Amino acid sequence: MSSIFTKIIAGEIPSYKIAEDEQHLAFLDAMPLVKGHTLVIPKKETDFIFDLENEDFKNLWSFARTVAKKLEKAYPYQRIAVAVVGLEVPHAHIHLIPIDKMDDMNFKNERLKLSGDEYKEIQNTIINL
Amino acid sequence: MSSIFTKIIAGEIPSYKIAEDEQHLAFLDAMPLVKGHTLVIPKKETDFIFDLENEDFKNLWSFARTVAKKLEKAYPYQRIAVAVVGLEVPHAHIHLIPIDKMDDMNFKNERLKLSGDEYKEIQNTIINL
Repeated sequence: MSSIFTKIIAGEIPSYKIAEDEQHLAFLDAMPLVKGHTLVIPKKETDFIFDLENEDFKNLWSFARTVAKKLEKAYPYQRIAVAVVGLEVPHAHIHLIPIDKMDDMNFKNERLKLSGDEYKEIQNTIINL
Repeated sequence: MSSIFTKIIAGEIPSYKIAEDEQHLAFLDAMPLVKGHTLVIPKKETDFIFDLENEDFKNLWSFARTVAKKLEKAYPYQRIAVAVVGLEVPHAHIHLIPIDKMDDMNFKNERLKLSGDEYKEIQNTIINL
């Protein structure tokens, strides 16, 4: 069965895309901790991030770096934090989370409920830099 | 002024090393969330991880991958989680945290207080695999 992320890649589930190349996709998290919370995934469905081939693994991080630099410009936060948890969706994904303080990346925090217009505004802010 | 990590690299502050090469070091976190909580750092002092040159950035992650695979073998956890926060020590570092559930990587959790013998046992478990 395809993962929810594979369905997002295929366009079967809509998402707000931030960046894309042949092997990777970055899109806004549907349950964001903060505005700009972004997921970076390899298009090839792999459960555990460390099971990617080393070259694919390095290229995924390199792609995530370019996305983090966009987020850095878009939002005046102190840091773009990184998290890989891997317990929920069996398709490797990197969380990029603009934070001002440690607790901003606490996954126990209540998630933002954003409207479609708010997501579009965030998307435009990031991709139009 | 040298960061605390630069002092660890120089051996001025003791640490329990897990892996090392010319450019990178992995050692047990002195304030671990769980047993096996490891920090991976570039030897070159750089504050923000995304400010590393792309090749250095990719090589750091590749090194972290080899360390994560050691941790995976050493401990029967579900996942090796990854976190980069970057608010505390101004020297880029990757947390590798063996977890069974999301909350195991909550930085608000109380840290383990381990004796020197316990650290040595963890170190030996990981490096002797």
